[in-house]
Amino acid sequence: MTIHPAWLPPETFRFLAGKRVLVDSDHPLADTVREEARRGGALLTAPGHPTDLTFTVVPSPAPLDIGSDGDGFTVTGSGVEADGPRGLIYGLFELARGGAPGRHEPAFARRMIDHWDNVDVHPVMGQVERGYSGGSIFWKDGAFLGSAPGGLERIGAYARLLAAAGVNAVTINNVNVHTTEARLLTDRRGEVVVIADQFRRYGIITHLSINFATPVILGDLDTADPLDPRVQEWWATISAQLLSDIPDFGGYLVKADSEGQPGPFTYGRSHAEGANMLAAALTPHETKPGASNGPVVHWRAFVYNHRQDWRDRSTDRARAAYDHFAPLDGLFAGNVIVQVKHGPIDFQPREPLSPVLTAMPNTHLAVELQATQEYTGQQRHVCYLAPMWSEVLSQAEGEVATVANTGDDEYWTGHPLAQANLYAAGRLAWNPDPIAVLDEWIDLTFPGAPAPLRSILHELMDTSLSTYEKYTAPLGVGFMVRPGHHYGPDVDGYEYTPWGTYHFADRDGVGVDRSSATGTAFAAQYPHARYESPATCPDELLLFFHHVPYTHVLHSGVTVIQHIYDTHFAGTAEVESMLSAWAKASTLVDPGLHARVASLLTEQLRSAVEWRDQVNTYFHRKSGIPDARGRLIH
Amino acid sequence: MTIHPAWLPPETFRFLAGKRVLVDSDHPLADTVREEARRGGALLTAPGHPTDLTFTVVPSPAPLDIGSDGDGFTVTGSGVEADGPRGLIYGLFELARGGAPGRHEPAFARRMIDHWDNVDVHPVMGQVERGYSGGSIFWKDGAFLGSAPGGLERIGAYARLLAAAGVNAVTINNVNVHTTEARLLTDRRGEVVVIADQFRRYGIITHLSINFATPVILGDLDTADPLDPRVQEWWATISAQLLSDIPDFGGYLVKADSEGQPGPFTYGRSHAEGANMLAAALTPHETKPGASNGPVVHWRAFVYNHRQDWRDRSTDRARAAYDHFAPLDGLFAGNVIVQVKHGPIDFQPREPLSPVLTAMPNTHLAVELQATQEYTGQQRHVCYLAPMWSEVLSQAEGEVATVANTGDDEYWTGHPLAQANLYAAGRLAWNPDPIAVLDEWIDLTFPGAPAPLRSILHELMDTSLSTYEKYTAPLGVGFMVRPGHHYGPDVDGYEYTPWGTYHFADRDGVGVDRSSATGTAFAAQYPHARYESPATCPDELLLFFHHVPYTHVLHSGVTVIQHIYDTHFAGTAEVESMLSAWAKASTLVDPGLHARVASLLTEQLRSAVEWRDQVNTYFHRKSGIPDARGRLIH
Repeated sequence: MTIHPAWLPPETFRFLAGKRVLVDSDHPLADTVREEARRGGALLTAPGHPTDLTFTVVPSPAPLDIGSDGDGFTVTGSGVEADGPRGLIYGLFELARGGAPGRHEPAFARRMIDHWDNVDVHPVMGQVERGYSGGSIFWKDGAFLGSAPGGLERIGAYARLLAAAGVNAVTINNVNVHTTEARLLTDRRGEVVVIADQFRRYGIITHLSINFATPVILGDLDTADPLDPRVQEWWATISAQLLSDIPDFGGYLVKADSEGQPGPFTYGRSHAEGANMLAAALTPHETKPGASNGPVVHWRAFVYNHRQDWRDRSTDRARAAYDHFAPLDGLFAGNVIVQVKHGPIDFQPREPLSPVLTAMPNTHLAVELQATQEYTGQQRHVCYLAPMWSEVLSQAEGEVATVANTGDDEYWTGHPLAQANLYAAGRLAWNPDPIAVLDEWIDLTFPGAPAPLRSILHELMDTSLSTYEKYTAPLGVGFMVRPGHHYGPDVDGYEYTPWGTYHFADRDGVGVDRSSATGTAFAAQYPHARYESPATCPDELLLFFHHVPYTHVLHSGVTVIQHIYDTHFAGTAEVESMLSAWAKASTLVDPGLHARVASLLTEQLRSAVEWRDQVNTYFHRKSGIPDARGRLIH
Repeated sequence: MTIHPAWLPPETFRFLAGKRVLVDSDHPLADTVREEARRGGALLTAPGHPTDLTFTVVPSPAPLDIGSDGDGFTVTGSGVEADGPRGLIYGLFELARGGAPGRHEPAFARRMIDHWDNVDVHPVMGQVERGYSGGSIFWKDGAFLGSAPGGLERIGAYARLLAAAGVNAVTINNVNVHTTEARLLTDRRGEVVVIADQFRRYGIITHLSINFATPVILGDLDTADPLDPRVQEWWATISAQLLSDIPDFGGYLVKADSEGQPGPFTYGRSHAEGANMLAAALTPHETKPGASNGPVVHWRAFVYNHRQDWRDRSTDRARAAYDHFAPLDGLFAGNVIVQVKHGPIDFQPREPLSPVLTAMPNTHLAVELQATQEYTGQQRHVCYLAPMWSEVLSQAEGEVATVANTGDDEYWTGHPLAQANLYAAGRLAWNPDPIAVLDEWIDLTFPGAPAPLRSILHELMDTSLSTYEKYTAPLGVGFMVRPGHHYGPDVDGYEYTPWGTYHFADRDGVGVDRSSATGTAFAAQYPHARYESPATCPDELLLFFHHVPYTHVLHSGVTVIQHIYDTHFAGTAEVESMLSAWAKASTLVDPGLHARVASLLTEQLRSAVEWRDQVNTYFHRKSGIPDARGRLIH
């Protein structure tokens, strides 16, 4: 098993070679810094001896006190002064990036990666749900890879990569928790212990996704009612066992009453009652009070009716998270974090910010991003997501949790360039400029990259999400993907299904009326009126909020139908340019990596052409309006 | 394991009780008749003693000579005079039906049932491909059920049912042959021997589906080129081994160069060369020359480009079988039967007769029917297919092969009323009147059925295919099913796929132009000009052959769009009537059977409403034309 170095090739640590390094702390994480320094060829020194670089923690912390409050650090002329032990590590990686002297602090205290890994292979979803990077690095066919040759080494290398990206928390299993995965709480807890040990070495706290009905699933109780004392005691006992084995265990991530997962609704209880019951089981194990320290409950707000009737025009899936959760603001315990997808629907390439993120001032919130490119090309298309995430994060606070795009693939992420999304998932919380983060990633991943390569990578990646948006569903209307696997076009694929994701195209127009005046009133969930009228709604979200005629003229000056044609031709042409650009990189990067990207770009072009032709033909057949520029529509 | 008696309940054989029966033959099949007579309570007598019923064969045949030529028989005043040993069995079952004295002869010499059973569970298709009746009765999870408790008994009971329906041949495995099934030719041949023994007792000859590339798949050769002497010898050896173990082995069924299955095209050879090579391997084992005697090759004509480009309007899947096979007429060996699906596409509820069936006068042909309700409600909808089959068989000759709808389901066929399709698959070759066959089936299955029950069953079944057609794809255009599983509506589901099944609906009209004047010229594959013009094309096939405006007036006097609305409302209303009718049968049939049918009718109604609403909404959105009768279209 070879492990791809990603953004940590040996060249990154050449700055340490021959340096005298003092790591002035007896915290376990200081040992990790010493090991990194040694690996980079540094000479470790003791206090009072001459040193070139000094790493210190001010003030000195207790061994287990690595709550996410103290991740900041200062790069001084002589080394790193960290606020807490994790700052030592972040300081080291900052020096590896050649970071300038000064203060470094993350905008988000917890920077989590959520894995969707299954222990058993799921008959439909496989080893990793929506996984586009091979199998899990934790489990294979139900067996723990930490016990397989090279397995621990890979998990350790992964932890190191995440830490270098500034990540400090990880949930290791899928939010859809089946019976086998439920046993990670009980007789398979030892596997979590081993994984947590690997992550801990890099300051990363391990969390588990749990099934709300675990007491029932494992056969211990006949109810999971959160107000039943037996249920409360069950979770208290399990939590105590977990915390005993993993003293810095991070807590639970819960997908409840969502897409068939069980939850408190079964027992007539609220989400607050459900979440607070689990939180209470964790509270005795807090070392300091407050959500950023000690074990917590991440409770997902992704709750909607996935069995709605397409004929029912009053139900609006976009409304669901707000309708379910906003009324509960202030009712959640201090160690509950409500985790909210960044858009109101489900990780489309273009959505407005979820109104939940500004509607719960008295609740700890996490914003959920998706590095897994479920709806953005499935790691077969180049789609650098950081520009969208940066926009989201500029409007959110508290925590960020990003669904992982990693697996046992040679390049970790299927598409080698998708590594940049994983990197950005952590780094954007420190540096909000997505193109600067991309520059960092290029510098690290392609050490000594010549200017032409940097330029090619920027050409491929900077606007790749915009390109993807152009050749897929237009103007924020979303979906139009093949049901089930979600790859490639199927304009009507979800139109008559129970999933709540419709475009309502007819011979006259297209779009979802979410205005208060004539539609579902989702637009009223925002504190501003921008989305209420087509006159003020941004073009790129027009069809998310309004049903308009094909002849409606956008702010850009073109009609909706002409915009559809234009963007689909333009997006495909942009992919052609990406192919040409990448061809010029053939001597500038590793040949294997070049070949992988080239092959994927060929697939991206095929797919883009398919999107273009299906979408254009669909709307031409419906509207009867020809392309003003006379291009071929089949 | 209880075995449902289907059309052979004990009452059927009461006519034998106390009768003195002489079975005057020493052929092994005479033993089966004796056993049946004994089971019915008859007293077996010897020649020269007084008898009430005599079964004789004129002339006396050799033990293995049960070629399909001599299946006829005469019911005389005193019993049955059979043309061959199988006629003894058919005569017995005819008496059980209370058949009138006179001559009985099948119109089709070979009446085959083709199973789509897999040995291993296929990851997508399961234990039975397109199986809607539970698992296979032959294999479960890769293991042979003939060795499991009750397994042989069930296979034997199935053979008896098939014989009572007049079936004389069976192919026991799926035409998509994977590695495990390929081994039925070699180290798993013993299982075929055991199955063949069961079928032989009822005069049914066992055939195997084979993979054209078996010599490669099993690792024996590096080619399956039919002109390579090593390949020819491989098949000759395998065939000799099969015929040695199963002296009356029926032969091979082959799906070649079709939907990804290998075939002679790989080696630049024709279908005739491929089929004749296999035929030559079987020829030494003929006991009499000619296709109806001795082992044969059934070679499917279901060959088309399943990777076509939806943008390519010149390629027409309907043309494919004719284009591939008609030029080969006269080139196939005498023991090759080209097996042709009854319609040019794929078992839709409404298709024209395949033009191949009248285009190959110098080739042995079999017409293929599908009792498996893949596109006709998947044995959740009542859909009695015999009216369509009867129309097909009146235009065909030679052989009929019907894809099985049976499995390990309690009622054999999932839907209890779908037993009638299996029964008709054999019986229509003897009695071409589908409603008379349904009467037979009712008489046998519900002995002593009172008039109200007979009336209810006729109300549910006589026109059930017409009802199904009304609420699904209109006017012969076909498909509009959910891709993959093929159940329920998805109007555009196949519209932009590579499968060649399109409707080309736009805002102005719908249908496939297959005329010679302006379309793909498929209509010219017929010896008559009926389909060439909308003026002469029957309404029910209009959209199969022509693209017309929604305002086109049908021969019936209504427009296409109004026909779509009217039939979809009418079809759904007919299902409602079926539910009401069946409710009145609650005390007239077994409660378990009543409940099963009632539950399935509820699902049928739900599905019909879904079809109605999706199709009506789809065409309303496209055409903008309101329902003339103002009914609700969503």
